[in-house]
Amino acid sequence: MTRGRQLTRRGFLRTGGAATVAGAALGTSSAHGEGRPQGDPRRLYGERSPFEKATRSFGASTAALTTGSSRAPLQDLVGIITPSALHFERHHSGVPTIDPAQHELLLHGLVDRPLCFSMAELRRFPSVSRVHFIECAGNAGREHRGDPGPTAQLSHGLVSCSEWSGVLLSTLLREAGVRASAKWIIAEGADPGRHSRSLPIAKALDDVLIAYGQNGEAVRPEQGYPLRLVVPGWEGNVNVKWLHRLHVTDQAAMSRDEAASYTDLMPSGKARMFTFEMEANSVITRPSGRQQLEGRGFHEITGLAWSGRGKIAHVEVSSDGGRTWRDAELQGPVYSKALTRFRAPWVWSGEETQLQSRATDETGYIQPTRDALIAVRGMTQGPDGFNHYHGIKAWKVNRDGSVAHV
Amino acid sequence: MTRGRQLTRRGFLRTGGAATVAGAALGTSSAHGEGRPQGDPRRLYGERSPFEKATRSFGASTAALTTGSSRAPLQDLVGIITPSALHFERHHSGVPTIDPAQHELLLHGLVDRPLCFSMAELRRFPSVSRVHFIECAGNAGREHRGDPGPTAQLSHGLVSCSEWSGVLLSTLLREAGVRASAKWIIAEGADPGRHSRSLPIAKALDDVLIAYGQNGEAVRPEQGYPLRLVVPGWEGNVNVKWLHRLHVTDQAAMSRDEAASYTDLMPSGKARMFTFEMEANSVITRPSGRQQLEGRGFHEITGLAWSGRGKIAHVEVSSDGGRTWRDAELQGPVYSKALTRFRAPWVWSGEETQLQSRATDETGYIQPTRDALIAVRGMTQGPDGFNHYHGIKAWKVNRDGSVAHV
Repeated sequence: MTRGRQLTRRGFLRTGGAATVAGAALGTSSAHGEGRPQGDPRRLYGERSPFEKATRSFGASTAALTTGSSRAPLQDLVGIITPSALHFERHHSGVPTIDPAQHELLLHGLVDRPLCFSMAELRRFPSVSRVHFIECAGNAGREHRGDPGPTAQLSHGLVSCSEWSGVLLSTLLREAGVRASAKWIIAEGADPGRHSRSLPIAKALDDVLIAYGQNGEAVRPEQGYPLRLVVPGWEGNVNVKWLHRLHVTDQAAMSRDEAASYTDLMPSGKARMFTFEMEANSVITRPSGRQQLEGRGFHEITGLAWSGRGKIAHVEVSSDGGRTWRDAELQGPVYSKALTRFRAPWVWSGEETQLQSRATDETGYIQPTRDALIAVRGMTQGPDGFNHYHGIKAWKVNRDGSVAHV
Repeated sequence: MTRGRQLTRRGFLRTGGAATVAGAALGTSSAHGEGRPQGDPRRLYGERSPFEKATRSFGASTAALTTGSSRAPLQDLVGIITPSALHFERHHSGVPTIDPAQHELLLHGLVDRPLCFSMAELRRFPSVSRVHFIECAGNAGREHRGDPGPTAQLSHGLVSCSEWSGVLLSTLLREAGVRASAKWIIAEGADPGRHSRSLPIAKALDDVLIAYGQNGEAVRPEQGYPLRLVVPGWEGNVNVKWLHRLHVTDQAAMSRDEAASYTDLMPSGKARMFTFEMEANSVITRPSGRQQLEGRGFHEITGLAWSGRGKIAHVEVSSDGGRTWRDAELQGPVYSKALTRFRAPWVWSGEETQLQSRATDETGYIQPTRDALIAVRGMTQGPDGFNHYHGIKAWKVNRDGSVAHV
């Protein structure tokens, strides 16, 4: 029997010595019913294996558990769907418990017919399901600051991707008769802090969803149960959770989270506001920080890329510290404004090196280096740190196979 | 303010009376920080809302919880991804608890190099992620028998759909050097009953997956943790769970589950064996049995269609007992051998009627009526009941808005 310890260029597994295997050596008799005890029973609602330990991680900067963030363990995830139990969190006043039978969505302001919807009424409307990422504007902010995350979770874990189901906001706006004078929509959540953000009417009429479903079932409490505004490609903060009010107006609300926080302080001393779109970004999730390569030879490099401007067009990977780049394979179909899984083969020589990924979106925008980004954005933090960082992330592979941040 | 109680052709919501709404009427003040208590804290691994009650259901025919099936609550699901916690189950000797650090996959028989893979070794191979349904061959068997399921869950709940991640079996077979004399692969599980099934080598070299991931995280215990053979489009029983052995041979094993069970007894008295492919099928999940229409007017008809032969090409729905049919909209992108969500608008007059769906796959195969299917297949049950039933399902809408099976 040959073990897959050494993988080479000739094949994935190096198979030097002739080898045979007796099934019995593994205890894999094919006989039925040898008196083994039965396994566990069926369950009404399943759980993961007790051997699986991946969890979200809590940001160290916020001591109170009712505020702050938790990050998705990107290095442990596969495919493009983030398990709902591991979707990142960011909230300012905790997760409210809302009875959907009591919850209503009010749509009012510059409309011909103010409307109020129960959850049952929303379910009657034409529905859509779409795969989209949501990313906190502050994701990877510590990379900007020069304090890079030691794992993919700690560096880039404030992004996740779900199949969202619900009603297009444009459907409800047409139903209410939105007026020509409407310029903005102010979305408000039913959380204790009444979080609110303003959206330009053009986006509201484009691809914004009133989501009641996430990955096949109801939206999870931390994601806004029972209703979340999903604003594809735009910073997480405008994807208002626990949504209960939409106010159509002729001007933005200038709410706390768009006038003070969630702005980008520029070198000039002025702050950019309403920088909604998340730029093209990517991170290698395997091999990544604090993982261990089990020997030289063949390894797959895989990671996630995304852009708030549309589809990822291609992702390049470098395994020599940025000297050469080659195209990774993209998992299809590639969705617009969704996490896109990339994969590239790699044969590790056993020497120290660096791994990097660089995403390009369908608008032609290329993910910049950290230096190029800082040349434009500078190093002056806003009141909530750095937002919209999306520079190229590098992982260092040491000779002992350990992987670390650079 | 207008409530969405009455939906009509003119718009989704009938908005007869002029109405205005004061935000305060809903308690939706936009002021911040009015002394409301904080919500719940962040969590390392999330859970659904306590208000969500949908569960799998246990088949009544099997008393022991370690054998038998549980069905997915299709009427409560949205989109195409089945939440892993609600993915149907079917097993014959319970769910084994397997430590992935101890688990190995043996690949032997008619290969040049017998190989044995740890989970860590499998993770080094080139990976893929693909969305596929898995369906028990016995799904909807009670419809064949003439005892139709009163809910979508009880009639068709033995089908589910996941994003599966892992290694293509063809990759491992090439690595081992599969011989020209190879005709079959016998896949065996590590469950107490050592469940095994035989696959023709052509399918094994086509699109079969050795899956370690399901919906972004590890395969769930009931679905085969830590390894499941995913055989796209083929009956659930060959998608061997807790996979630990692949034996390459020149003939089928004729195991219990292919020689006795999981055959189709025909009117001639002979049984069809190795009827692997699941045929084109569909079911309306909303409105469906035991749901209640809240008033006449606009409703969306939605449901799921699938085919083991490839993509769903189109789905027609009838809302007049089968007299007229019209095309439903398909949620895109349509994946091959995956659940496909269809949606169609419908205005209910308030009269009694029937709702039906009819799927056509990309090979041109059209889902038959029950009568047409019985004309070919007869009414003689095999030892495990009827398999591969896929006739058109009808739901009756009563004048009081209640929905029932026909």
